[in-house]
Amino acid sequence: MKRDIVLAVDLGGTNLRFGAVDSRGRIVLRASAKMGTYRRKSDLLGDLAGAIDGFMAEAAALGRPRAVGLGFAGCTDSSRGLIYFAPNVGGFKNIGAGPYLERRLGVPVFVENDANCAAVGEHWKGAGRGARSLFMFTLGTGVGGGVVMDGRIWRGAAGTAGEVGHTIVMAGGPRCSCGNRGCLEAFASATAIVKEYRRLKRAKGRAAPAGRVTARQITGLARRGDKAAVAAVGYAARGLGMGIANIFNLLNPEVIIVGGGVSRAGRVLLGPAVREARGILFPQLARFLRVKRATLGDDAALIGAARLVFPRLK
Amino acid sequence: MKRDIVLAVDLGGTNLRFGAVDSRGRIVLRASAKMGTYRRKSDLLGDLAGAIDGFMAEAAALGRPRAVGLGFAGCTDSSRGLIYFAPNVGGFKNIGAGPYLERRLGVPVFVENDANCAAVGEHWKGAGRGARSLFMFTLGTGVGGGVVMDGRIWRGAAGTAGEVGHTIVMAGGPRCSCGNRGCLEAFASATAIVKEYRRLKRAKGRAAPAGRVTARQITGLARRGDKAAVAAVGYAARGLGMGIANIFNLLNPEVIIVGGGVSRAGRVLLGPAVREARGILFPQLARFLRVKRATLGDDAALIGAARLVFPRLK
Repeated sequence: MKRDIVLAVDLGGTNLRFGAVDSRGRIVLRASAKMGTYRRKSDLLGDLAGAIDGFMAEAAALGRPRAVGLGFAGCTDSSRGLIYFAPNVGGFKNIGAGPYLERRLGVPVFVENDANCAAVGEHWKGAGRGARSLFMFTLGTGVGGGVVMDGRIWRGAAGTAGEVGHTIVMAGGPRCSCGNRGCLEAFASATAIVKEYRRLKRAKGRAAPAGRVTARQITGLARRGDKAAVAAVGYAARGLGMGIANIFNLLNPEVIIVGGGVSRAGRVLLGPAVREARGILFPQLARFLRVKRATLGDDAALIGAARLVFPRLK
Repeated sequence: MKRDIVLAVDLGGTNLRFGAVDSRGRIVLRASAKMGTYRRKSDLLGDLAGAIDGFMAEAAALGRPRAVGLGFAGCTDSSRGLIYFAPNVGGFKNIGAGPYLERRLGVPVFVENDANCAAVGEHWKGAGRGARSLFMFTLGTGVGGGVVMDGRIWRGAAGTAGEVGHTIVMAGGPRCSCGNRGCLEAFASATAIVKEYRRLKRAKGRAAPAGRVTARQITGLARRGDKAAVAAVGYAARGLGMGIANIFNLLNPEVIIVGGGVSRAGRVLLGPAVREARGILFPQLARFLRVKRATLGDDAALIGAARLVFPRLK
């Protein structure tokens, strides 16, 4: 008998990933692709449909997928398959991704914010297993978040809950891509780390390394003790620590998980972030703080997207 | 037949209020008292028990109360009747209020954070009626908050959720009573408004009005257009606006309610606060923002404390 398979798709700020996920949360086939840059949302959707269609063909041997679960880097109304706004994907507004992809692909398509998917994935199979409540920070090109309460994702009234990246922790602080100042994303995103690293290098009177330096390179350098890299990651850690303290004060989740590409920095990020958070919290409460690094890596959003889809299948 | 009555008690940062509340949320008898200042928590608890006992005697004609519901200005574990920490009530830690009061009063006593009670009260009988989810800011001596999701108060893993007053909105900003800088409470509490008003008066080279000026006087002056008072309330509004935007981004509640004594300022506070919040939010999301002023005034926490108790009675 063929297994029930959901095609999970994760469109982050930079990468497009695919996974054929079975009902136990195992990724039985995977692929990835680069997205282009798009001036029109119809081009984005067309490319996305083509890429998913390509993966469906690859996965054909597994049997026809029951549905597609799409984690999308944007503010999402999953009840309508609508992306209100995608600041890190072309800045597009009101993308009717769900209905469009269903027409193109001929299977049910469920759209959810990618950070919500990651939180659900870590809750199901990762660092949040067994927790009644959790909050997950996804530190990537931007900063996303997902709230799990009583075991279920909390989407809010319009479906846009979890947008921790644009909560303000330092009014008047560094400029964020959204136009405001002092958002968490202006500290703890890959973008912010690169910017801070370049600033530190310039301040030292040294040119930044030739060509493009990535957050991945910087977190790698930081793990090996490079001073400017450690400082740039420390800058992210300070913002993240404030974000962790704010979430803990507001929601008091059983566990707070830190994932996304930036979390690869490991201890050099989480150590100072947790110290910052503990320094902010009342000591009576700080002892309840539990912060964990995500364990599923890039798979979290795929596994979570599938987890959100399975219960909706008849 | 006698009605089921719960004795609700609201111990805020400054005032002690009592209400005999029936199962429809009507306060059928009320009283208030001033608390002293206490150097030992046993003195605080002794005084509190005496005051509640006095109100029980007053309310005797209504029949023996089924239970006491105590809203307390502190971080609370309602499952154990424990107050972890009460920054605005003597700074006491680990107050075993529930067990102590049960022994003294001879009826079941349920202890809950006062701002959680207020949120539940407004949800049951006030500005949040019918909402599936809400967040309520209580702007008093300090700043409290309460999260209602799927119609129920969200307490978090250790019972301390909703502590919005100590979320950081301006790292490095004004000093808060908790020792940190830039907490919401350092902007939007009665304490902060008085401090800002005095600062503005001094900056103008005028002495502050003789004697103690209260936040209530300042919000009154602001409603009548007094410049320094409007500016002091505007300072609170800026912090509150950031808090509103942060809550909306994180939780996307159906409605956000602003209550507590400071909310008496009315439009002069809420107008600029909502403008600040809308300016921060993505326009695609800002249209979903609904902010309301609380409608139950000082009764919110009493009604909410009773609401939380009734379902626990056999």
